[in-house]
Amino acid sequence: MFTENKEILAESMSVLLIEDNKADIRLVKETLELNNLKFKLIVLEDGITGLSYLNREGEYKNIVLPNLILLDLDIPLLNGFDFLKKVKNNDNLKHIPVIVFSESENPNDIKKAYDNYANSFISKPLDFESLVKTFQIIDNFWLKVTELPPVSED
Amino acid sequence: MFTENKEILAESMSVLLIEDNKADIRLVKETLELNNLKFKLIVLEDGITGLSYLNREGEYKNIVLPNLILLDLDIPLLNGFDFLKKVKNNDNLKHIPVIVFSESENPNDIKKAYDNYANSFISKPLDFESLVKTFQIIDNFWLKVTELPPVSED
Repeated sequence: MFTENKEILAESMSVLLIEDNKADIRLVKETLELNNLKFKLIVLEDGITGLSYLNREGEYKNIVLPNLILLDLDIPLLNGFDFLKKVKNNDNLKHIPVIVFSESENPNDIKKAYDNYANSFISKPLDFESLVKTFQIIDNFWLKVTELPPVSED
Repeated sequence: MFTENKEILAESMSVLLIEDNKADIRLVKETLELNNLKFKLIVLEDGITGLSYLNREGEYKNIVLPNLILLDLDIPLLNGFDFLKKVKNNDNLKHIPVIVFSESENPNDIKKAYDNYANSFISKPLDFESLVKTFQIIDNFWLKVTELPPVSED
């Protein structure tokens, strides 16, 4: 349900961004600041580290699972599709919404992502203005209108 | 990517609403008109008819699969969770985004929907103004920003 309370809740939410392109990471951070978006952003730069984080291995033993994952497909060590499959086939992780955030507009990539249970697929805008607009809409939909799954500490 | 062209594309999109509450159906239709939303809305009132439609059985032999499904959980004949499982376990259908659109705000229902690969979960707003706002945001995210899977005629 759309309520202004969701804006307050958003301050305690966290989004995991799996992305290795430094320029894109900087753009996302600048966009969040410009939009005054309050959620916590965690950035990990490859698929293996991303999975270690979600599986709370080693240094990530005490993390709280993110409320949302933004996933680039073109990431090192484990590609985005394999990362997506590992998350969506894991009973402890599959409830976390994964938004694929990719440069690809290839219909085969889009179909393959949805077939592997990506929650949605967004093509990365090429200019800053469109990126800002896109993040406002992601924020409106996922952080203000959608009921996200409860975060479990287990 | 956010482009104005998506507004034109939206005119050729179709959304399947699975909902049996007549008042809710009327509200959704009024909201679409008020928002000037151009996509085609197909309404089916129970889960069995919904599956027959998606599986192109009998009178539905020649339908084109919808671009998006809006699913109430409290529907007759086959409940919403079972409908969701049937869609998401079917290789011909699982790519279609399913937005659960329910009166429930129960965290167990929300978790169960995401565990069964719902693409997102929205609690039905109780008043018309919030419903209009919610549909504007659904439209902005799913029909303007998201890349939806290609519709196959197979």
